[in-house]
Amino acid sequence: MEAARPLDALNSARGKRVIVELKNQRQYTGTLVSFDIHINTVLTDAEERVDGEMKRKLGTVFIRGDTITIISTQ
Amino acid sequence: MEAARPLDALNSARGKRVIVELKNQRQYTGTLVSFDIHINTVLTDAEERVDGEMKRKLGTVFIRGDTITIISTQ
Amino acid sequence: MEAARPLDALNSARGKRVIVELKNQRQYTGTLVSFDIHINTVLTDAEERVDGEMKRKLGTVFIRGDTITIISTQ
Amino acid sequence: MEAARPLDALNSARGKRVIVELKNQRQYTGTLVSFDIHINTVLTDAEERVDGEMKRKLGTVFIRGDTITIISTQ
Amino acid sequence: MEAARPLDALNSARGKRVIVELKNQRQYTGTLVSFDIHINTVLTDAEERVDGEMKRKLGTVFIRGDTITIISTQ
Amino acid sequence: MEAARPLDALNSARGKRVIVELKNQRQYTGTLVSFDIHINTVLTDAEERVDGEMKRKLGTVFIRGDTITIISTQ
Amino acid sequence: MEAARPLDALNSARGKRVIVELKNQRQYTGTLVSFDIHINTVLTDAEERVDGEMKRKLGTVFIRGDTITIISTQ
Repeated sequence: MEAARPLDALNSARGKRVIVELKNQRQYTGTLVSFDIHINTVLTDAEERVDGEMKRKLGTVFIRGDTITIISTQ
Repeated sequence: MEAARPLDALNSARGKRVIVELKNQRQYTGTLVSFDIHINTVLTDAEERVDGEMKRKLGTVFIRGDTITIISTQ
Repeated sequence: MEAARPLDALNSARGKRVIVELKNQRQYTGTLVSFDIHINTVLTDAEERVDGEMKRKLGTVFIRGDTITIISTQ
Repeated sequence: MEAARPLDALNSARGKRVIVELKNQRQYTGTLVSFDIHINTVLTDAEERVDGEMKRKLGTVFIRGDTITIISTQ
Repeated sequence: MEAARPLDALNSARGKRVIVELKNQRQYTGTLVSFDIHINTVLTDAEERVDGEMKRKLGTVFIRGDTITIISTQ
Repeated sequence: MEAARPLDALNSARGKRVIVELKNQRQYTGTLVSFDIHINTVLTDAEERVDGEMKRKLGTVFIRGDTITIISTQ
Repeated sequence: MEAARPLDALNSARGKRVIVELKNQRQYTGTLVSFDIHINTVLTDAEERVDGEMKRKLGTVFIRGDTITIISTQ
């Protein structure tokens, strides 16, 4: 996930496990399927975590970009 | 709900039951009728849930995109 | 209030009683007169409700779109 | 204050007494002088109210549109 | 500070003492030097007030438009 | 820091000591190096203050414009 | 990290250790890999800190620009 522009970095993380963190403190871990310039993001095999604790399995989840703080590779 | 762009993923969920979660912690479950680039979303046969508990039946509901955090398939 | 695009759904609700809910938890019920792409919305014969309790009658009310969370038909 | 588009509704309220409510719960009552597409609004003979209680007279006041929740006629 | 468009109203207040109120409840009184379409505003001979009480003299101050709720003439 | 448009005022403060205040109540004092139309701002010889008390020296700091409330000259 | 425009300043910090602070009070330290006009930022060898205390190592992290308050060089 390293490249000359931030979105290139996300691009190289496609198909890999990532952690997406939201402004409301929730975390979603899953395989990065897609994202767009608004950072709208789709994960598969996703799990929701609150304070690091697994809360529920979500399958596929669409995350609205403006709620995201960070995306990191696991 | 998997595809190359995030909105393609939403597109493949049309006509299916989805869960839409809002910044104010409310959840709406229903059949996904339509959405646009702002993620404004319309559900039918919708139910509102707060903390996982069914609060009321809404029939058809329009949800303003900027209040949405995630959309997942059930 | 069902159609291919979210705003079509609002369009088919014109002239009908709707419930508009705001980020500040207030609800406005009234007859949907008009809306625009920002979801700025005008209701007539409107009532304001807080926690489901009628607080005051407003006649005609203009609601700024960015304060709205959901619009549903009654 | 009824018309085909929301701003037409505001337009027909020009010169009339209106109540403008803000996200910070304050209310401004006054004569509607002007508004624009951002809903920036100018009132004259304005009074500020908090919890329905008159707090001060303001003469002419410019209200930034993005702080407004609703505008209603008295 | 009365005119056909909201910014005309601000324009006629140039060179006059105004009160600018912010979303964080602070007030700035000063002479209105300039503003732009974002309502970014510059005051001179400015004073900051919190709860109506003078807190400090600021000389010239640039106020970012999106933090402003209202501007009124004194 | 006085001119016909708000950004002209910032322009005349280049190279001078300014105080930048943020929505989160922090203050940054430093020499104004640059700014842009979003009010993204760079200071050198900067210090962070919370409640008027010096918290740390930062050297050069980039401040994202949308977090800024006011900029004043010292 | 000094230049005529704010983004030039960020540009000269590429490849250097920086501290990125977020609206939610978290800090990320790491090597600045890339940023864009929205201030979306990618760091490598990143660490997350809360109240100055190291919380976890993140490797590479994408930070959404609109959550950032300041970026400073160490």
